[in-house]
Amino acid sequence: MGSEKSKNLIIGGTGYIGKFVVEASVKAGHPTSVLVRESTVADPVKGKLIDNFKNSGVTLAYGDLYDHESLVKAIKQANVVISTVGKMQIPDQTKIIAAIKEAGNIKRFLPSEFGIDVDHQEAIEPAASMFSEKVQIRRAIEADGIPFTYIACNCFSGYFLPTLAHPGAAAVPPRDKVTIPGDGTPKAVFNEEHDIGTYTIKAVDDPRTLNKILYIKPPKNTCSLNELVSLWEKKIGKSLERTYVPEEQLLKLIQESAFPMNVALGVSHSIFVKGDITNFEIEERFGVEASELYPDVKYTCVDEYLDRFV
Amino acid sequence: MGSEKSKNLIIGGTGYIGKFVVEASVKAGHPTSVLVRESTVADPVKGKLIDNFKNSGVTLAYGDLYDHESLVKAIKQANVVISTVGKMQIPDQTKIIAAIKEAGNIKRFLPSEFGIDVDHQEAIEPAASMFSEKVQIRRAIEADGIPFTYIACNCFSGYFLPTLAHPGAAAVPPRDKVTIPGDGTPKAVFNEEHDIGTYTIKAVDDPRTLNKILYIKPPKNTCSLNELVSLWEKKIGKSLERTYVPEEQLLKLIQESAFPMNVALGVSHSIFVKGDITNFEIEERFGVEASELYPDVKYTCVDEYLDRFV
Repeated sequence: MGSEKSKNLIIGGTGYIGKFVVEASVKAGHPTSVLVRESTVADPVKGKLIDNFKNSGVTLAYGDLYDHESLVKAIKQANVVISTVGKMQIPDQTKIIAAIKEAGNIKRFLPSEFGIDVDHQEAIEPAASMFSEKVQIRRAIEADGIPFTYIACNCFSGYFLPTLAHPGAAAVPPRDKVTIPGDGTPKAVFNEEHDIGTYTIKAVDDPRTLNKILYIKPPKNTCSLNELVSLWEKKIGKSLERTYVPEEQLLKLIQESAFPMNVALGVSHSIFVKGDITNFEIEERFGVEASELYPDVKYTCVDEYLDRFV
Repeated sequence: MGSEKSKNLIIGGTGYIGKFVVEASVKAGHPTSVLVRESTVADPVKGKLIDNFKNSGVTLAYGDLYDHESLVKAIKQANVVISTVGKMQIPDQTKIIAAIKEAGNIKRFLPSEFGIDVDHQEAIEPAASMFSEKVQIRRAIEADGIPFTYIACNCFSGYFLPTLAHPGAAAVPPRDKVTIPGDGTPKAVFNEEHDIGTYTIKAVDDPRTLNKILYIKPPKNTCSLNELVSLWEKKIGKSLERTYVPEEQLLKLIQESAFPMNVALGVSHSIFVKGDITNFEIEERFGVEASELYPDVKYTCVDEYLDRFV
């Protein structure tokens, strides 16, 4: 795509991570469009977000993931497609793949990933099934020879840090007691959502990320739960009572929990007990690391992020 | 099926609600089998559960939802199939439907429902997509003319009551403050898991539930969040500080939350703001109510359930 900025279509742009990607795309000077249903414009919450998009220069592409013609039409006007659809639509990205094939003009497709690298994990059920939906989309993209980048952005700071990674706890870090799955030593990676948007957009027209996984693993955002708790303790000048939950007990808890808590706990098991984010090396044949590729990006590190709650 | 007890095959019997259904099936004297993968027997958590099943007289049917032949073989040895598969496998129940068609001997199929009646709800995304997976399975069953019963058991007590319906909060009811979505007036229904198992098994060979939705809505388990909080306040002899979250604010929070919290909050919105459990009448043409059909079942009511936490 040379020096010309790619034209980015974002599908799922009003979602949790999508809005950060849209914002980063516009800021970086890309012609940016967002697929929206006409009915969504009247939605009390999403409507406001869509207004903000329009005011910042985003083009609205009216259409629907489930309306093939509208999808092809929107795709034909772009040359990069970034899907940020939510968990419930992950399997339906086969519809995007079909539309990209028909449109025939797309230089890069980023399916909705925005989590751990699903090709390097050993999650148990039900998290395993959730990850496998993303794996299946990867294989479908590769089978069709569509140029891709997979964004393995690891943990959203906004989801994990306000609770020190305790799924579903109050959205402020604890000041008395903390529960830690496993022994608290495997390292995870926590990235701020704006930074995830920024790195994603950096990658869309970079030849170095073509057909690769982009791992967002900045060194300052890589830490274990024990280190995270210690960092927080230092900030508030107080020690927390730490309760460690042995793996077997966590497995039992997952087994005895209903959806969606079982999925949340299963993801915790994969990340914080198995260490699935950091227990493998990134090899050149399949991946690149974002903070190495883009050293100019000033990212928000975990230490700074926690300052918000002191 | 006359006076003969049906032979029940449970698929998903080691899951959250499955184990209660298996237990109820055995207790009621039904020849009961559970589909299990041979590898699962060695699982540290599920293995123990499977041992308990065997000791109580359950037959293990070795097989896998994704192994068509094993599924057909297990189904041929039963005459009722009860699926209690978890959320991630809901769409894959098309594989059970295909196997039931091939086996040709099944007198009743209960797909995995065990929630609100998905044909009477107005949930927003992402809860809407989750409910729609169950709707699609219903339509597939009906299109194939398979005799069915859908169990609309509404809220699991074990999931909702320990937190007074605050998704993901600590598993003990609050004693100081409580957050209530909406105005707290729509009525919900909370059922204890053993009772859900008992009612489910009562229904499997009852001609009155054939091709009907079985609603588990005992009067004593039907209450609003305001009533639930008042009941708890009375038990602990103390008033809680109630914070009401207006619908628009809840919608924004859902929009801004990541999976799985957005799904949990979306379900809360459907149940506690829209009132989707109780805002319609059960009509004879589509449904029957469990505590009316089976007045002999002594169910655990909400009032008794909360006593556990005083």
